[in-house]
Amino acid sequence: MINKLVSKIKETGAPIVVGLDPMLSYIPEQILAKAFTEYGETPEGAAEAIWQFNKEIVDHTCDLIPAVKPQIAMYEQFGVAGLHAFEKTVKYCKEKDLIVIGDVKRGDIGSTSAAYAAAHLGKVTVGANRISAFDEDFATVNPYLGSDGIKPFIKVCQEENKGIFVLVKTSNPSSGEFQDRLIDGRPLYEHVGEKVAEWGAEHMGDSYSYVGAVVGATYPEMGKILRKVMPKAYILVPGYGAQGGKGADLVHFFNEDGLGAIVNSSRGIIAAWQQEKYEKFGAEHFGEASRAAVLDMKADIGQALHNG
Amino acid sequence: MINKLVSKIKETGAPIVVGLDPMLSYIPEQILAKAFTEYGETPEGAAEAIWQFNKEIVDHTCDLIPAVKPQIAMYEQFGVAGLHAFEKTVKYCKEKDLIVIGDVKRGDIGSTSAAYAAAHLGKVTVGANRISAFDEDFATVNPYLGSDGIKPFIKVCQEENKGIFVLVKTSNPSSGEFQDRLIDGRPLYEHVGEKVAEWGAEHMGDSYSYVGAVVGATYPEMGKILRKVMPKAYILVPGYGAQGGKGADLVHFFNEDGLGAIVNSSRGIIAAWQQEKYEKFGAEHFGEASRAAVLDMKADIGQALHNG
Repeated sequence: MINKLVSKIKETGAPIVVGLDPMLSYIPEQILAKAFTEYGETPEGAAEAIWQFNKEIVDHTCDLIPAVKPQIAMYEQFGVAGLHAFEKTVKYCKEKDLIVIGDVKRGDIGSTSAAYAAAHLGKVTVGANRISAFDEDFATVNPYLGSDGIKPFIKVCQEENKGIFVLVKTSNPSSGEFQDRLIDGRPLYEHVGEKVAEWGAEHMGDSYSYVGAVVGATYPEMGKILRKVMPKAYILVPGYGAQGGKGADLVHFFNEDGLGAIVNSSRGIIAAWQQEKYEKFGAEHFGEASRAAVLDMKADIGQALHNG
Repeated sequence: MINKLVSKIKETGAPIVVGLDPMLSYIPEQILAKAFTEYGETPEGAAEAIWQFNKEIVDHTCDLIPAVKPQIAMYEQFGVAGLHAFEKTVKYCKEKDLIVIGDVKRGDIGSTSAAYAAAHLGKVTVGANRISAFDEDFATVNPYLGSDGIKPFIKVCQEENKGIFVLVKTSNPSSGEFQDRLIDGRPLYEHVGEKVAEWGAEHMGDSYSYVGAVVGATYPEMGKILRKVMPKAYILVPGYGAQGGKGADLVHFFNEDGLGAIVNSSRGIIAAWQQEKYEKFGAEHFGEASRAAVLDMKADIGQALHNG
């Protein structure tokens, strides 16, 4: 799956992942109204609106991008109905040949981590059957519990040809509270990065590992160091756009081969129609606004990599 | 909710939480067969078996214990059907006046953490309605992302009179990989414990905070230190029984008042019928085996606290 990600990034020329993190406030009135008419102002209504919204965005961007990253929290808040919309979204994106990175940030130990790995990347045994639940291609994983939390995911990745991105340095303002603290003279995130490189050696693709890392666009200097600490890890870079990361900041996350990083934008793409820059599309054509925003992001990153 | 937890612990004399972490291998054949006959060897069949199994255990233990802790991974692996069983389990336990600690170990940032908090502890707005999704009483939370990940949970806890347990020192063998590393001469888990005390000061109950901590029974010496670092935090203690923690190890997690800790046992209770010690109950009476195991655990902890 990491080989497929690399080849799709080359094919599209776009090291971009669109974050499918729908808030109801991003969804145009006509979609909400239709869903609420059909299902009421209920979790089912919200889930239907999210699903219709996602479909339109995917339809308008799937030829431009290699991957999407649905954030499961945005679905989980609507309970079982919301998670059903998550499931449908994953399936639909895979039908469109997009790689799906489940942004689930799960992490537990032993049999529990194995259950999360089965839920999101693998299969579970029920009687004589082996059944997939959410079946994403990649999942994000939290490292706080150490190797016991990560290894069960790697095992499933090996069985199913899938991958993970381990949180190393997150994009948020307070990420330094623990992640930046010095241990033997180097910040915790570097130690985590070293473990990512070590875990990644257990499951290599052709040029990159199935074990990648999450490093926020908002910390480009740290990205530069982490790029060297884990040269074979693909870096998933959140924090571009709405969170303040700029194209020029991104160059450090890439390797000399122009590969090694994939940059996420969520609100900047899926709620593009609400921005002044794209308001000419109007609420009716929000999918086209998202398409324009992807093209602009691609140009911004291309320019930065060219200059860098 | 922390006041209710404390009063229920006093009332039952049992600082015990039963972990509802059903594996299909724990479920007696008669329950599996019935569920599979009705729903097939499908996620729906697995979910039905889990639900019937949980109900029987809850019915046989609810008068003895203050709380249960369903581990969501064990449900999530069966997808939407599994999460529906989780939802039903939470609701049923609350009807039985048990406090429900959702062992979800979620953690993200900003609006995403807020969405997880809404999913598990709060409400979400759909049109003119405010709707609860899973609606547990407490949730476990991962601290790796710092305050940005925790504060949205605390906000919801304040609004809804609910609580969280933050992972501080986990019970697994590799928990030390990052958690034990020294920062300014003290391990990371102590720094996290200090933040728990700080976050907890923002939302206090009568004698304990709504912000508790998870510290594994397998590390009693660290528990002793952490007890002092965060005197007002209730400590949720996993790792008793199957993972190797013993009654005598637990005394350090409690305060002088005999309160301040609640000890989890999962497999040791819910799969008691499979142990030699309780085999006399037989698969038919697995609920009674669980009841006997709770009584034994209560006696073991009571004895340890008495001696300690």
